[in-house]
Parts: sequence; C-alpha cells; structure tokens
Amino acid sequence: MRPSARRPDQLRPLRFTPGFTTQAEGSVLAEFGETRVLCTASVEERVPPFLRGRAQGWITAEYGMLPRATGERTPREAGRGKQGGRTLEIQRLIGRSLRAAADLTQLGERTITLDCDVIQADGGTRTAAISGAWIALRIAIQGLVASGKLPQSPLKRQIAAVSVGVYAATPVLDLDYAEDSSAETDMNVVMTDAGGLIEVQGTAEAAPFSRVEMNAMLDLAAHGIEQIIAAQRAVFSE
Amino acid sequence: MRPSARRPDQLRPLRFTPGFTTQAEGSVLAEFGETRVLCTASVEERVPPFLRGRAQGWITAEYGMLPRATGERTPREAGRGKQGGRTLEIQRLIGRSLRAAADLTQLGERTITLDCDVIQADGGTRTAAISGAWIALRIAIQGLVASGKLPQSPLKRQIAAVSVGVYAATPVLDLDYAEDSSAETDMNVVMTDAGGLIEVQGTAEAAPFSRVEMNAMLDLAAHGIEQIIAAQRAVFSE
Amino acid sequence: MRPSARRPDQLRPLRFTPGFTTQAEGSVLAEFGETRVLCTASVEERVPPFLRGRAQGWITAEYGMLPRATGERTPREAGRGKQGGRTLEIQRLIGRSLRAAADLTQLGERTITLDCDVIQADGGTRTAAISGAWIALRIAIQGLVASGKLPQSPLKRQIAAVSVGVYAATPVLDLDYAEDSSAETDMNVVMTDAGGLIEVQGTAEAAPFSRVEMNAMLDLAAHGIEQIIAAQRAVFSE
Amino acid sequence: MRPSARRPDQLRPLRFTPGFTTQAEGSVLAEFGETRVLCTASVEERVPPFLRGRAQGWITAEYGMLPRATGERTPREAGRGKQGGRTLEIQRLIGRSLRAAADLTQLGERTITLDCDVIQADGGTRTAAISGAWIALRIAIQGLVASGKLPQSPLKRQIAAVSVGVYAATPVLDLDYAEDSSAETDMNVVMTDAGGLIEVQGTAEAAPFSRVEMNAMLDLAAHGIEQIIAAQRAVFSE
Amino acid sequence: MRPSARRPDQLRPLRFTPGFTTQAEGSVLAEFGETRVLCTASVEERVPPFLRGRAQGWITAEYGMLPRATGERTPREAGRGKQGGRTLEIQRLIGRSLRAAADLTQLGERTITLDCDVIQADGGTRTAAISGAWIALRIAIQGLVASGKLPQSPLKRQIAAVSVGVYAATPVLDLDYAEDSSAETDMNVVMTDAGGLIEVQGTAEAAPFSRVEMNAMLDLAAHGIEQIIAAQRAVFSE
Amino acid sequence: MRPSARRPDQLRPLRFTPGFTTQAEGSVLAEFGETRVLCTASVEERVPPFLRGRAQGWITAEYGMLPRATGERTPREAGRGKQGGRTLEIQRLIGRSLRAAADLTQLGERTITLDCDVIQADGGTRTAAISGAWIALRIAIQGLVASGKLPQSPLKRQIAAVSVGVYAATPVLDLDYAEDSSAETDMNVVMTDAGGLIEVQGTAEAAPFSRVEMNAMLDLAAHGIEQIIAAQRAVFSE
Repeated sequence: MRPSARRPDQLRPLRFTPGFTTQAEGSVLAEFGETRVLCTASVEERVPPFLRGRAQGWITAEYGMLPRATGERTPREAGRGKQGGRTLEIQRLIGRSLRAAADLTQLGERTITLDCDVIQADGGTRTAAISGAWIALRIAIQGLVASGKLPQSPLKRQIAAVSVGVYAATPVLDLDYAEDSSAETDMNVVMTDAGGLIEVQGTAEAAPFSRVEMNAMLDLAAHGIEQIIAAQRAVFSE
Repeated sequence: MRPSARRPDQLRPLRFTPGFTTQAEGSVLAEFGETRVLCTASVEERVPPFLRGRAQGWITAEYGMLPRATGERTPREAGRGKQGGRTLEIQRLIGRSLRAAADLTQLGERTITLDCDVIQADGGTRTAAISGAWIALRIAIQGLVASGKLPQSPLKRQIAAVSVGVYAATPVLDLDYAEDSSAETDMNVVMTDAGGLIEVQGTAEAAPFSRVEMNAMLDLAAHGIEQIIAAQRAVFSE
Repeated sequence: MRPSARRPDQLRPLRFTPGFTTQAEGSVLAEFGETRVLCTASVEERVPPFLRGRAQGWITAEYGMLPRATGERTPREAGRGKQGGRTLEIQRLIGRSLRAAADLTQLGERTITLDCDVIQADGGTRTAAISGAWIALRIAIQGLVASGKLPQSPLKRQIAAVSVGVYAATPVLDLDYAEDSSAETDMNVVMTDAGGLIEVQGTAEAAPFSRVEMNAMLDLAAHGIEQIIAAQRAVFSE
Repeated sequence: MRPSARRPDQLRPLRFTPGFTTQAEGSVLAEFGETRVLCTASVEERVPPFLRGRAQGWITAEYGMLPRATGERTPREAGRGKQGGRTLEIQRLIGRSLRAAADLTQLGERTITLDCDVIQADGGTRTAAISGAWIALRIAIQGLVASGKLPQSPLKRQIAAVSVGVYAATPVLDLDYAEDSSAETDMNVVMTDAGGLIEVQGTAEAAPFSRVEMNAMLDLAAHGIEQIIAAQRAVFSE
Repeated sequence: MRPSARRPDQLRPLRFTPGFTTQAEGSVLAEFGETRVLCTASVEERVPPFLRGRAQGWITAEYGMLPRATGERTPREAGRGKQGGRTLEIQRLIGRSLRAAADLTQLGERTITLDCDVIQADGGTRTAAISGAWIALRIAIQGLVASGKLPQSPLKRQIAAVSVGVYAATPVLDLDYAEDSSAETDMNVVMTDAGGLIEVQGTAEAAPFSRVEMNAMLDLAAHGIEQIIAAQRAVFSE
Repeated sequence: MRPSARRPDQLRPLRFTPGFTTQAEGSVLAEFGETRVLCTASVEERVPPFLRGRAQGWITAEYGMLPRATGERTPREAGRGKQGGRTLEIQRLIGRSLRAAADLTQLGERTITLDCDVIQADGGTRTAAISGAWIALRIAIQGLVASGKLPQSPLKRQIAAVSVGVYAATPVLDLDYAEDSSAETDMNVVMTDAGGLIEVQGTAEAAPFSRVEMNAMLDLAAHGIEQIIAAQRAVFSE
C-alpha cells in the first residue's frame, strides 16, 4: 500500500494553470498533488557569449526552491552565496531537456530562460518543473510567432517528465515525498510524445536494482508521461 | 488622474489568503492589486549565536523576488552569488518592523523567520510584505500558543505598512509601478493599529519635498493603514 | 541630561578639514565630535554600463568602516568576502542624497565616486559622511570647472545631513553613540540649504513614535542642518 | 568505424597503478586510454555535523580537473571562486556510488574522502574516477583493518563504472573525447560485481533514444564493467 | 639624483603619532613622507581554533588601502568580494614579522590583531605598516601589563622595516612611489634592534641583481632601520 | 645530521620528465625527491585587458595543490570558494620569476599560463614549480617558433630556484618537509644561469638570522641552482 493509497501506476492529481503570473512571456503553475512549481519563460533578444554570431538561439533553465517550500526551512541560496549542487544538477537537467524539444537554429539570436521556482515541495519537483516548463516555453514561442518575430515555431517535440521508483519492493509511479524519502530506487525519466527517451537518471538508494526492475519503472514512466502529455495538450486546446 | 484611475486616497484591491502554502507554521499570500507576495513564518527552536543564553527569542525576515516577478527578467540572486543592496535593505526593514510588534522576551529561545517572496511585482512589494508578514507571524504564534509551547502570545502590537508618494504634484496612496517609477517623492510608512509610527522612509526622487507634503503623505498613510489593519483582522475573525 | 551634557538642540563640535589627503580630486575629513569620516571624491572619465551613450554623468558613493573605528573590533568586510547590509544601505543613502544635489546631465560622461571611510565612530557616521561628501564633491567639481573640463558647475543644491532622535523621552539633535544605542527613536534627515527634505529615515527602536515627536525631531534637524550648511560654506569662503 | 578503430564493444587499454602517490591512506592512478585520473582516499577520524552521534561513518568524494587536462585550458575553479555545476554533479555521483558499496554503520565515526583529480582528459573521466576510487577506498579500508581500527571491512560490494553511447547510429562502449563530443546519446552506468545497477544516467544529445538502444547500451556496459571489475581485482591479487 | 632630491642613504621625514585614534588598545599614525598608515592593535580574549587549549596567544595582522589612497582610485576590496593577492601577501608579512617580536607563550590565550590601513600611499606602505604596528603592539601590551592582565611584557625584540632598491643604477634607501615604480630592484627588509634579520624580500624588476648590490642594499636597510628604531623608542620615552 | 642523511650542500635526487601530459603546449613533471609538481604551459592568443593594444605578450602562473598531496588532507580551494594567501603569494612569485626570463615585447599579443600543480608535497614545492615551469615555458616557446608563429625565441634568460635554510644551526640546501617544518630560517632563491639574483625571500622562523648566515645560504643556493640549471639543459639536449 502506498502512503497516499494510490495504485502503483497512478499519478497524483495533475493541474496546469497557464497565465498564473502575467509579466512573463510564458507562465504556468504546475501541480502534481501537493507539489507546486511556478514555471515562467522569459524571452531576451541576445544570446550568451559562446553563441554570439552563430545564427542560433539558446534555451536555458534556472531552478529555485522557496525556503519554506519544504517541511523544515531550507536556508536561502541567495543568502548562502551560492547555489547548491542539487540545484545546479536540476537546472542543468531542465535546460538540456528543453533544448532537446526545440531546433535552436530556428529560434533566432535570442535566449529563452525557463525559471522553475518551487512554491511547495512534496517530491517530484524536477519532473514537475520540466513538464511545466515545456508549457511555458510553448506559450512564449506562440507569442513570438503571433507577433511576427518568428516565421514558425522552432518547437519540434513535446516533452514531459515523471519520477518512478521502487518502493516497498514494488515499482511505483510519481513518488511523493513520503515514498521518495524511503524508496529503494529513484528514477527520473524525460520522454517525448512519440515515446522517445530524452533523459533517464536512476539511482539505487538502498540496494542495487535489476534490469527487470528498470524495465518495469520505464514502463510505468511511459504510462504516466502519456497522461502528462495529454494534460499539457489540453492547456492549448482550451 | 492616476494611471490606475484611482482617487489619490484609494488603496488597490487588497486580499490576504491565509494558508496559501501548507508546510510553514504560518503562511499568507498578500495581494495589493497586481503585487503578490508570499509570506511564510518558520519557527525554529534555536536563536542566533549573539542571543544564546539570554532567555529571549528572535524574529527576522528574508526577502526575495522571483526572477520574472518583474517586467524584465531580474537575474537570480542565488546565481549571482549575493543578495543585492536593495534586497538587504528591504529585509532589514521587514525584520525591524516585525520585531517592533512583539515582546521577544516572551517568545522563548526560538527564532521565527518571515520569508517574503515576491511572486509578482507591481510596486509596493516591501509594504505588502510587512503587512502580510504580520499575519503569517500571528498565525505561527497562535500555533505555538495552541500547542502549549507558549503560555500566551508575545505579540504586543498589530502593524501594517503602505507606500505613499507625490505623483504629478499630488500626494497619493499605495503607488503601483507606473506611479512609483515616475513619482517625485516616495515614502514607505509602517504604523501600529494605535496609530504609532514604526518606520518612515521618505526619499526625494525628482525634487526636495516640503514639510507640508510630508504631512499630507503621512495623513494618507494613516488612512490607508487603517484599512489594511482591518483587512488583517478580518483574516482572524473569519 | 544628555550623556555629553549638551542641550537637546546642540550639535557636537563640528570640523571640516579640506585637503586631508592629497591624491583625490576632492578630500575632506568631517568630524562631528569624536566621529571622524574621511570623504574623498574621485573623478573617472567613464560611466557605468547602464548609462553609456546617454550623455549624462553619474555620482555614486561607497562607505566603509576601519575595523577598529568602533569600541570592539569589527571584522573587515574585505576579509569576510562581502559588504554587510548596513554598509550597503548606508552607501545607497549617501549616493542618492548626493545625486539629488547635482544635475547629472551637466556632468558629462564621467563618474564621481564619493568614498566615505570611517576612521573613528561615535554615532552619526552616515550623516557626517553625507555632509562631508558634499564638500568633497564640490571641491572635485570646482577642479573640473577650473581645468576647463566643465563649462559650469552641475551642482544645483547644497545638502547636509544630521541625526535626531528621542532619548530619555526628549527629542535631541546629533546623537552620539551613548545616546544612539539607547534611544527610543532614531532618525536621519538630509536637507537642502533651502530647507527642502531629501531623505527622512525614522525608526522606532523601543516604542512607536508620534506625529508630534516626528515634528519635533524634524524641527531639530532643520536647526542643526542650518549650522552644518554654514560650516560647509565656510570651507569655501576661506 | 570508431575514431580509435576499436570494435563497438571494446574498452580502451585499462591500467590501475596503486600507490601512485604515497601520502594518502589509499591511492591509485586510473587510466582508460589517454584519460588519467588520480584517486586518493583520505581517512579522517570525524564525521560531518549532520551525522554526529549517529554511530556511523561517511564516504564522500570531490572531483577536480587540472586546468590543462583538456585540449583548451579550462579556468581553474579555485580562481573563479566556485566549483561549476558539472563538477558538483560529478562529485555527487561519485560519492553516492561509493556509499552504495559500503555499510556505513560498520565504518565507525570516521569519514573517507575520495579525491578524484583528472590529470589528463579524453572522455569518460567520471567513470574512470568511480572505478579508481573504489580501489583507493578498498586500500584505505584494508589499512584500517590491518591497523586494528576496524574489526572487519565495511565494504559490501565491488563497483565499477563505464560510459556507453550511440555513436554514428551504433551503440559503443567506453567513448573517448572524439566520440563523446559527437555522440547521439551518452550514458554513464555504475554496476556491482553481481550485475546490479547502482546508477544509470542517459542523455539524448542529438535525438531521443529508444528502449532498444537503451538495452543495447546497458548490455555493452555490463560487458565492459565485467572487465573493469576483473582489473580492479587484479590490483589486490598481485 | 633622486626624484625627491634626497641622498641615496636618506630616509623621508618620519613621524609616529601615537593615540591617533582612541578606541583601540593601541594606535599610531605612521608617516614616511607622504605615506600615511594608521596602525591599531586590538586585544581579544580568545585565540583562533588551531591554538585553542595550547596555553599561548596569537598575533596577526590585516592590511587595507583606502580606495583613494593612490593616484588612481583602486576598487574597494570589500566590494569586489575578496582581498587581492598583494593584500594577502602583505598582511602575512606583517603578521609573521610581529610574531617574531614576541614570545607568544607569555601572551596568555588572547589574540592581538594589528590593523594597518593605508590612508595615503606614496611607496613603502608595507614597511611603514610594520614599523608602526610594532608601536601599536607595544602600547597594547603596556596596557595589558598596566591593568594586571599580564605579569610582564611578552615583547622580546624591537623590530622595524624599510624598503631599499636600486634606482638609476644606485642603491637607495626608502623609495617613494616615483622611485618604486621605475626601480631596477626592490627589496623590503625587516630587522631587530640588535641588527638581526627577520625578513628579506628582494625582487628583480628590470634586471637581475648581484650579490654586491644585495649587500649594498642590506647596508642601507640597516642604516635606515637604526633611525626608525630610534624614532620608535622616542614615542615611549616622551 | 639531516633527517635525510644528506650533506648540507646536497640536493635531493632531481628529475624532470618532459611531456608528462600531452594536451598542453609544454609539460613537465618536476621531481625534487618526493616533491612532485606537474608544470604545463598553455598558449592563448590574447592578452589580459590591461595589456590590450600594447604590442606585447604576458606570462602568468597559477599554483595549486591536490588535496592529498600533503600528509593530512588539505581542503580543496575550489570548494572553499577562494585561493588562500599562501597560494596567491606563490603564484605571484612564479609569475614574476618567469616574466623575468623573457622579453614580453617579443612574445606577440599572446599569453602563456604556467599551471603548477603539486601532485605530492615534501617541501620546496614553489622552487620545484619555478624550475619546472621554465622548462614547460621553453617547450611551449619552441613550439611557437617551430610553427612560425614567432620569428625567434623571446626567452632571454634561463632561471631556476631552490630553497635553503638554517636547520639545527647549519645552513642547508634544498629542505624537505621534515627540515622545513623545524628550520630556524627558510629562504627561497631564484637565480639565472649567469648567477644573477631574481628573487630572494628569507624568513626568520625561530630566531633572527645574521648577514653571515644569509651569505652562507646564498652560496648554497648558487651551488644548487647551478646543478638544476644543468638538469634543465639536459632536457633539451636529449
């Protein structure tokens, strides 16, 4: 039995609220159960130094957690003077995943920054961030196309992400904090709407995992991502 | 005529949403028009080194702004490696104001940290933060009393804050960003429910201001704070 | 009775020593009793990035305190790796005040930096810094005019500053450290020679203050600043 | 055809030189072709603050790259004032992997730090670091057992790591820099001598990868790790 | 001919003003011509962690330069977020030299920090700092003895320092900035009143120097230090 | 008797291994007994900002120590967020010494960076670094000449360095860690092949040293450097 009484293959209630804030070119509040991540997309008409003059754009991400998004207060990274290893690892993952969704040569010499800020954390913040960031990115790109700044969308794939794991010897989908903190294995999976794998990051927490378990987790991830993909689409068909 | 078509003595629509997040001991979303600040109160059973063994508690504040709370993206302070002067100045102001509301010797050897994070900025974020933080603080203290950790509330005053200024030669209440960025004078005022002054910070932006203008601004502030005080009370009477 | 046996409306002995150091374009040692601040003005023929190509100049300030300016040694900020919130707050205040004294569009594309370094601290360092920095600024500008780099002075106002407060239930002028550390209210006021207000920063330390007390403090400040303005003028008439 | 003319399932020449330096409790130079990583294990008789009094030990890792380990000089992280995201990500991976190899409750209240410094980089530095660090760790633990500080070894598993990828549409083992920089997919795999998975980190660089490709890569990894495990064992049987 | 028209073996006018500031346990303004360094000694009743429980004290130094001590403004180290290599090198030199003057085991478990802040720089700031710091140290130690905190002075040697160099092919004593910036060789020498060498730091700036030149410089240094030693003594005999 | 049983004027076994790593334009492993320093020279076709447009090149050095190069693990400077004073002092010394060996106006607008990383430390790391860096520099410059980027070598002097000291009242050459940590005096000397002095840095550790001791140490240094110069030459004659 999962702490949340969900079935092993059951996602938490999923909600995307586009336009949650109004200043950014794209904005969405992504909620996976009690996990809430605000994703905004900011368009800037310049590229980082290493890309200047290369006739292409850039997509990057930053991740943050409000100090009291967690059960105990986490010291503010701005006050400590640096971003921790976990933060840097997560924002590198989000950025890579989003870049895999677009053709940067069709973006023009501009940068889109996806800021993913965790308002409340209950496990799976990085996968919620990726799933939400794709929506914010698409909203921003639609704006660029609508305003004539881009002739067509450089988005080439839809992507979404979910966490899976082995909890109490059972492969489960979309772990909340109670499961995540005592899971034997933890895996984050990013996939496209066509079922292609973009990122797989699996970690044995308590014991090594087998190829059989890995396959079961990947099956669960594919099953969950299919539903997240549908929920992302619903945002745009409304 | 104000850009928002408000009367000179008119506040923006004001809303306090207690319990906006659930992990903190106290939490409220404070909205002054389009300005939205999430205030949380975190209780920790220790005091900073300089207060150890002095049989008193501590109240402190931290302030942050999500990168895309503003019209143009503001670089993330955690990534730049330090908090800017404006951030430090604001969180010092919030902390001082909240400490003036409580008797720290009745708090026990514990620290309450008020995190004020700006989700969306449209002027007046620091005064919204103070007004919201007082609510979060009271919720947290009620919890300490309810759980028996404190025999009685160390809160001795209700405080709230508002910005006033001189815009187009007219003293006005509760400036939004459009007014704030072209005001001749800008003043932040923190007051108690009994009408006492806690903080007054006035700055001539374009031209020096007179004692007459100063008095007009303080009158407006008192008028506005009275309404904010009422709205704070309504949170607890519901 | 004040610890220094001064009358409530009495300034400490005031002394400005222009040319205290010789390398800077402008230099003055400002002494308010035992408080001693060295103010230098440095002219650089460039503006910060955000002002490039805007046909205007910039005036900015930096503030520091020697480690043993105080009764107990304060750790050196250069060694700690960052300037504290108090330092940043003060240097922002000095810079804003001095910019209010000049027409930046008449300064040309150059920056004048006012470095205010506290050699000895006995209360009121920030207001001594502002009062001294105005002198250093005027000396530097006179040099620019004398050398033909500027056709006329961009200085449009004379400014000075003083601290006031409520000590032992009495409004008093120009607090020294003994008063400052136990005052009920502390207020810093910056004014022009024409009596206009530039900055008012009042803080309730022990109890809220009233409008009546605020007015009494502002009256004292106006009275003190008048004398400081005269002392500044004397530097240039000698 | 691979740039190095190796078969798809062929490792680079592999060499472990134990005792490469003499000050550390364990030391080995790990060479995978031209990639050379110096791994040292340092034993300290204390644990980090979060583990004090819990009757267990800690294993952690740090990773660094000499500035000219690479084809173009990389700025020294010590000079830049912080470790980059890639460095932090890698040292977190090494630390997690090594902790999975040991029973920390049998280590006593001591810390073993694995320093993995890249002398020369030609792809696969993090997997070479993990494979070498296990040897350095075992040497250090043997010393603790030999000196009577530990009654028995807390090492419970042998682990090793290798990189795999898809290059020119073919799954390949142990990518060098020429392959790594133009691979379609890149995956790092950490496994035990019993074939259990410890870490799987796969990233689509140019195009999504399929479950079929993933399985092919995992097969190659298992094949390669088997040989590395044998080479590690040979160090101890000599 | 030297730019200052001094003879090769002639010091600049030398002045020590004890008690220049009043908060520190020891204070002196050291002037070598236009070079002015404020040296203060601060006594703290604790030792750094590495000396705790060793029944000895510690003497250390910090060095700083006001931004406009120099002909062009030097950016403030506190603002840049770190002390530069030159600063660290100089304060290590001052600290080592002063420790050589005292018997730390007779100092008790306390730390004396010598802060040497350059008010105005015209060459030779580090040697002026050492010569002045010895005076500040002795004043502070006399206070400890006078107050009964120490039974006797732990000072065992008198030390002073001076710079020498080769300028225009001639060995010269006590270089000012005009000489220092175009000298062929620059050497800083710290000696005791008994003529023993404490530190010798010589650097070829334009061309290698010979043993003959080195000896000539050391003779000049001994000659100059003798006079500085006398001037230090005069401070205490007055 | 020296701990190593060497004669007072005897160097440790000396070995230079050119080409120890292959990516850099110049590379050598310098070994003085158990002290091992990897020196690489990196050529970059740009100069630092302060030299732009001056038709000259730049030579600079960086120094680092692997955490476990020492008997006890030294915390990694990259992790601590800054280079220590000792590191900065050493890399400034190496850079100055190497610049004295070359005519920078003949180098073209390029920078050569000497990275000196201590693999294992047993005393004398800075002098081993200088001696090795000269070899790496010469290899890199030979490459620039061979490829036609430079018409002739800008190297004008051969330099090498050694440490000397007074140990157990006897002047000794090339101190190892056992001697260095209990020497009365420690001196580092950099000289040219023509016997000119480039740097002399002598420090009294336990007691002042005399001119007689200083001369004895300089004689020993000259004797040792002569042999190091010969070993450097042998690298190029092979």
